[in-house]
Amino acid sequence: MQRIAIDMDGVLSDTVQQFIAWEEKETGVKKTVEEIMGKPELEVFPNSKKHLHTEGFFRYTSVMEDSQEIVERLNEKYQVFIVSAATEFPKSLAEKQSWLNEFFPFITWQQIVFCGSKDIIQADIMIDDHFKNLNGFNGFLSILFTQPHNAYADSGRHRRVFDWKEIAQILL
Amino acid sequence: MQRIAIDMDGVLSDTVQQFIAWEEKETGVKKTVEEIMGKPELEVFPNSKKHLHTEGFFRYTSVMEDSQEIVERLNEKYQVFIVSAATEFPKSLAEKQSWLNEFFPFITWQQIVFCGSKDIIQADIMIDDHFKNLNGFNGFLSILFTQPHNAYADSGRHRRVFDWKEIAQILL
Repeated sequence: MQRIAIDMDGVLSDTVQQFIAWEEKETGVKKTVEEIMGKPELEVFPNSKKHLHTEGFFRYTSVMEDSQEIVERLNEKYQVFIVSAATEFPKSLAEKQSWLNEFFPFITWQQIVFCGSKDIIQADIMIDDHFKNLNGFNGFLSILFTQPHNAYADSGRHRRVFDWKEIAQILL
Repeated sequence: MQRIAIDMDGVLSDTVQQFIAWEEKETGVKKTVEEIMGKPELEVFPNSKKHLHTEGFFRYTSVMEDSQEIVERLNEKYQVFIVSAATEFPKSLAEKQSWLNEFFPFITWQQIVFCGSKDIIQADIMIDDHFKNLNGFNGFLSILFTQPHNAYADSGRHRRVFDWKEIAQILL
């Protein structure tokens, strides 16, 4: 059975919408997706670093469209691991696990990995929105999940997808 | 640079002494290391499951003799990752990271992995006290760290060590 490593932020959870909402709460200004296209998140959301360390940020992020149904189907056909680079934000760890338990109750604790560097992850397929995670991956298929911050970059050897329906087409 | 995956409980931290202390606090009876030899921890410490879920259990476990100095030296020669099967106990995650920050301050968040199954870990060398973690490992050297629960088992293809000094002899 092939193993898939699926990222959380920006892949299962809609981190960009959460950044927009928390930034608006902080500054009163609501950024649009258009104006953040192609720019690093830390740059376009000046308070993002603080928000990432704040309780509730990860716990109350909304879930990405279609991801629940499709990950549940992947979970029958593949060995699914949810792999999140989360140890930079130690308070997020329990929140992220609670979030997974709520939105992906079929994912067991055995299938969850919280790490810093993803270089140590051994899988056949990786789905992620960050080049820093995909570039060190040595499985046979790396899928770049489109997010504003990577929207204008050349996907290189990674296969770019725009939503979960497209992942279903490739993997199911 | 070769990569080493080092376990926490029973390898960096003295989980057995913590089980003995917490069991004594609970029941008034202090077990000796001799009487728990060769037996599974969940069996010899009837309250262990509860204690593992209790705040403070991991945070205040003592550090294994010689491990700090030797891991610091390994960290110069190898790519060191601390890999703990911890997602079964979500409350332990932040505690374990605080514990590492206190006793192994040279280990960065990039080098920490909290997982359920260690099958997903890609490394050259693994040091662990549990067969369930070592048996699925496909690197070239797996080191079984002796603990009472594994003391009488045939180490099989894994190299058994009895303390950190012995690890230093092999790897430094």
